[in-house]
Amino acid sequence: MQTKILLPEDHIPKQWYNVIPDLSSPLAPVVHPVTMQPVSPDDLLPLFPMGLIEQEVSTQRWIDIPREVLDIYQLWRPSPMYRAHRLEKALGTASKIYYKYEGGSPAGSHKPNSAIPQAYYNKIFGTKRIATETGAGQWGSSISLACQMFGLECTVYMVKVSYNQKPYRKSMMQLWGANVIPSPSNQTNAGRAILAAHPDSNGSLGIAISEAVEDAVGREDTRYALGSVLNHVCLHQTIIGLEAKEQMALVGDYPDVVIGCHGGGSNFAGIGFPFVADKANGKNVRVLAVEPASCPTLTRGVYAFDYGDTAKMAPVAKMYTLGHDFMPPGIHAGGLRYHGASALVSQLVHEGVVEAKSVHQLACFEAAVLFARSEGIIPAPESSHAIRGAIDEALQADEEGQEKTILFNLSGHGHVDMQAYDDFFAGKLTDYDYPEEAIRESLAQLPKVG
Amino acid sequence: MQTKILLPEDHIPKQWYNVIPDLSSPLAPVVHPVTMQPVSPDDLLPLFPMGLIEQEVSTQRWIDIPREVLDIYQLWRPSPMYRAHRLEKALGTASKIYYKYEGGSPAGSHKPNSAIPQAYYNKIFGTKRIATETGAGQWGSSISLACQMFGLECTVYMVKVSYNQKPYRKSMMQLWGANVIPSPSNQTNAGRAILAAHPDSNGSLGIAISEAVEDAVGREDTRYALGSVLNHVCLHQTIIGLEAKEQMALVGDYPDVVIGCHGGGSNFAGIGFPFVADKANGKNVRVLAVEPASCPTLTRGVYAFDYGDTAKMAPVAKMYTLGHDFMPPGIHAGGLRYHGASALVSQLVHEGVVEAKSVHQLACFEAAVLFARSEGIIPAPESSHAIRGAIDEALQADEEGQEKTILFNLSGHGHVDMQAYDDFFAGKLTDYDYPEEAIRESLAQLPKVG
Repeated sequence: MQTKILLPEDHIPKQWYNVIPDLSSPLAPVVHPVTMQPVSPDDLLPLFPMGLIEQEVSTQRWIDIPREVLDIYQLWRPSPMYRAHRLEKALGTASKIYYKYEGGSPAGSHKPNSAIPQAYYNKIFGTKRIATETGAGQWGSSISLACQMFGLECTVYMVKVSYNQKPYRKSMMQLWGANVIPSPSNQTNAGRAILAAHPDSNGSLGIAISEAVEDAVGREDTRYALGSVLNHVCLHQTIIGLEAKEQMALVGDYPDVVIGCHGGGSNFAGIGFPFVADKANGKNVRVLAVEPASCPTLTRGVYAFDYGDTAKMAPVAKMYTLGHDFMPPGIHAGGLRYHGASALVSQLVHEGVVEAKSVHQLACFEAAVLFARSEGIIPAPESSHAIRGAIDEALQADEEGQEKTILFNLSGHGHVDMQAYDDFFAGKLTDYDYPEEAIRESLAQLPKVG
Repeated sequence: MQTKILLPEDHIPKQWYNVIPDLSSPLAPVVHPVTMQPVSPDDLLPLFPMGLIEQEVSTQRWIDIPREVLDIYQLWRPSPMYRAHRLEKALGTASKIYYKYEGGSPAGSHKPNSAIPQAYYNKIFGTKRIATETGAGQWGSSISLACQMFGLECTVYMVKVSYNQKPYRKSMMQLWGANVIPSPSNQTNAGRAILAAHPDSNGSLGIAISEAVEDAVGREDTRYALGSVLNHVCLHQTIIGLEAKEQMALVGDYPDVVIGCHGGGSNFAGIGFPFVADKANGKNVRVLAVEPASCPTLTRGVYAFDYGDTAKMAPVAKMYTLGHDFMPPGIHAGGLRYHGASALVSQLVHEGVVEAKSVHQLACFEAAVLFARSEGIIPAPESSHAIRGAIDEALQADEEGQEKTILFNLSGHGHVDMQAYDDFFAGKLTDYDYPEEAIRESLAQLPKVG
């Protein structure tokens, strides 16, 4: 009974896949948050090194992965794919379920897939120091690791509530040499302004982004880094789906549906975009994003220009959004609580190429517990949304008398998230109703563009 | 630059290696704690299923791994081996350092290598329920996972101080379906007796063993399980070293020295015994156990018969021991704080086949930090002892103008141990002097055998 499907070392993809050429219309421009005019590559130079800006706007279909990046990728890549025999049996489904597992990286998630090349392109550009923000800490720990690998300094503005409540991720960042600052801080004008008005502020991702951006723009030796949403981040993550396609081919199979959880879009793009490419070539495959019902960006948001952050300092992009003022409820999947979405994922949803659905928190934890008890691996709360999506596909196929081949991405392990499981078992978690009023208010604040 | 050395799936070892035939004299008998007479296999039946008792006394050199165990092993096996290029560079050493990595299992350590077959042999024996103890929780989480995989109930007596202070491992056990009881508990006579005398007792591994043994012996449907020390546990772990030998051969190399950290002996036996076999066949290889200076069983203990537990309920074995009353200081490597050692490892040390050394806590954390910052992976505090051993071998070789090939076992990741790193960075950790007085007192309590 073959459970694990390994790709031989020398089959690791040597190029990332850029989905932009597959779009049926050009990607909407990114707009400056003050002038409301399209930004040029030069406008982005205070934030990013040229190598990443080029990737952000590239229309090349394949982009070479540098040797130095492959050298580090090989620590945990190619990542394994599994046939979930035990989960299938527990469900009694006639469908086949496969999952790609990204929890084997040193940081325990898919985030290093982009952190490593981001640090590399900064290094060759001459950047000495990176400023970034993190919520729950998955991105912060991954970029800390990457900076350590390339000899860059790293400062992470970590949302204060997580800094205090999720100390393990903070400790990982410090172990990897980063300077971790609880946000809002007194290190930036943005932080000081918040603290002056709200001395007890617990912070938010929007505020932390503002602090990191201000830090990076203010220092010549420093650039900013973001762990999701942007085109180049999605690009780097496609190594997940490229490997998965090869692994499916190794066992002579191909998925009917490919599933990823969705927050900003990076792990979803990673597993999904290489299959979007197949779809563009006429393959019959569905690509499905699963998001939390409490933060239903793709399923209940609008497709419009909006700011990337609360403080309106980040560029404005056309995307599905719940409004930059939207504050999602405090669900345990911290990595999925973003008001917006990747412009690429958004356009693909808008074009009908990619499907989206939302699921409730309790149903996700039920799926995660069933998964851990059948497959062994403990999923991160974020990843449990993809598991829920896969299980529901299998159950629905059974109802319809069909046998489907289902592939999902298990984006990270949950060893650092055990409190969430404790809360679930203790009955402390609830499902949140669709926050209709909050979203309506927040959507009234969209900027006017063009 | 090849960093990762993967064994092809179909090269996973199909047999474990039994080191007993390599001993130069017969293994001393295990003795009953009350009668002080050698135990027979039948004496052990209330504790273990027959399949494991047979392995405990087998003199067969190779023992088949059941298909059902291989099916689960393949979730994370063969485990990767790495050439530590970045660590070598950070040290500036002329030596080559390789490490085998066992942190990729669902529980994050090498412990499932024995938990899975233990659950399997219990299942086919007809056992319905397993009772066991755990200190910091590495073993408890692994046996919980294994019981879940084979549909067995599992009760874990967890040392109370860890139950309260290390909640994440407790949560993992519960997620995998185990019933976790803080020890001392009111579930057993042993526990009630302790609580009557010391209502605020924080527990100890010795007490927890007594509770689990009492639980198992008292119920026909229940057997006991132990995560280290015993011959069959060492046997199961040899899959680590067997894979490592094949991986070294894949890159045309062979170690001058093989290193494992040492507590009860399971991960050390795992990496070491297959090389002990080579040594018996005339190969020139050193096999080195590295233990904490605060619990220096192999280096400062005596080779004598002693009880396996504080309460004198567990069988008496001839081993290196600090005395069953010895309470080691509260260092962060909880998995290495055991007063005794595996009888097999002990005899091999006594015969001069295996070397042992002790290292201090702070030097281990320094090594772990250097490792995490060069190789990326965050080591468990236990594993850091092997890293320290490997680094010291490399530095010493440099001093002597030699180039060595060094192999060590990285037995687990430290994602659930970040508090230890926080304490290290905060300067809260200390080195403990060799506890001479405590050991002398404890050694005065050794039983008289034969």
